[in-house]
Amino acid sequence: MSEPELQLVARRIRSFPDFPIPGVLFRDISPLLKDPDSFRASIRLLASHLKSLHGGKIDYIAGLDSRGFLFGPSLAQELGVGCVLIRKRGKLPGPTLSASYALEYGKAELEIQKDALEPGQRVVIVDDLLATGGTMCAACELLNQLRAEVVECVSLVELTSLKGRERLGPIPFFSLLQYD
Amino acid sequence: MSEPELQLVARRIRSFPDFPIPGVLFRDISPLLKDPDSFRASIRLLASHLKSLHGGKIDYIAGLDSRGFLFGPSLAQELGVGCVLIRKRGKLPGPTLSASYALEYGKAELEIQKDALEPGQRVVIVDDLLATGGTMCAACELLNQLRAEVVECVSLVELTSLKGRERLGPIPFFSLLQYD
Repeated sequence: MSEPELQLVARRIRSFPDFPIPGVLFRDISPLLKDPDSFRASIRLLASHLKSLHGGKIDYIAGLDSRGFLFGPSLAQELGVGCVLIRKRGKLPGPTLSASYALEYGKAELEIQKDALEPGQRVVIVDDLLATGGTMCAACELLNQLRAEVVECVSLVELTSLKGRERLGPIPFFSLLQYD
Repeated sequence: MSEPELQLVARRIRSFPDFPIPGVLFRDISPLLKDPDSFRASIRLLASHLKSLHGGKIDYIAGLDSRGFLFGPSLAQELGVGCVLIRKRGKLPGPTLSASYALEYGKAELEIQKDALEPGQRVVIVDDLLATGGTMCAACELLNQLRAEVVECVSLVELTSLKGRERLGPIPFFSLLQYD
């Protein structure tokens, strides 16, 4: 991986203590989006990793509502494939499948359209950040329900102390930047 | 505007009656995102319009949470500029400004980080769809609060019968596809 290009990305992630709740150090990707060279670098680095690992054998990128939407379409374009949408409950029209995941308090649901993917299609899921892995797991479950194959999950940022990666079990996971 | 390229986009918007509530015909952009050529065409057409009208005089694209996030970063890259985020309430860390807008029942709020833009910077706001224009108006109000200049608002789809364009007043508005 090209170190200067990765530094370009790392310099554009800033931290806010106690957001959204006390005790949480929030990683803000706004500066990355605001700088076109850094954003391009983040997409190129993710794409380059995926190409080296999977070659042309990726059919779709799945973007997670809503910060994953900032990266999904650009990453898909860089790989020459399409982007499918995994959304919060009630946002997608037509027949959908749903999977629930735990939040701080209570739970939430993700949905995908039933015709989003065919069985056997090879999909990479992208989000901005992996924390406990609850959302990413629910996304994997949705793709399993459609009998699509999750070849890898990727994020820009990984909060390693929360061990989200372990929760994904045998599904490969890759992140550009790791924080405790 | 290149007609075949526009048709490529139009063919990938599908309609669902009575979603999310009875009487509403929902325009679904999922097929557009799923087809890489059509998505690329939509970005090229929006960028080409903006270049012809404003040349290099656009500093940032502002993407609206959450379907505007699907287009903001790609459009910004096509124009060689950055993308700033306008989000639903409570999602952005640090000092923010907010503006409220009416929903079917009650109201909602949009926020932007106070340091997102400098006074005088020229910004284009992008969303997937313009309906009544309430969200787009609130986004304009946020940029006004920052004393940034909204040079244009754009969307893929415009529901003309809801007259959102009129609500934007003197701010130029452009859409790729218009439906009643």
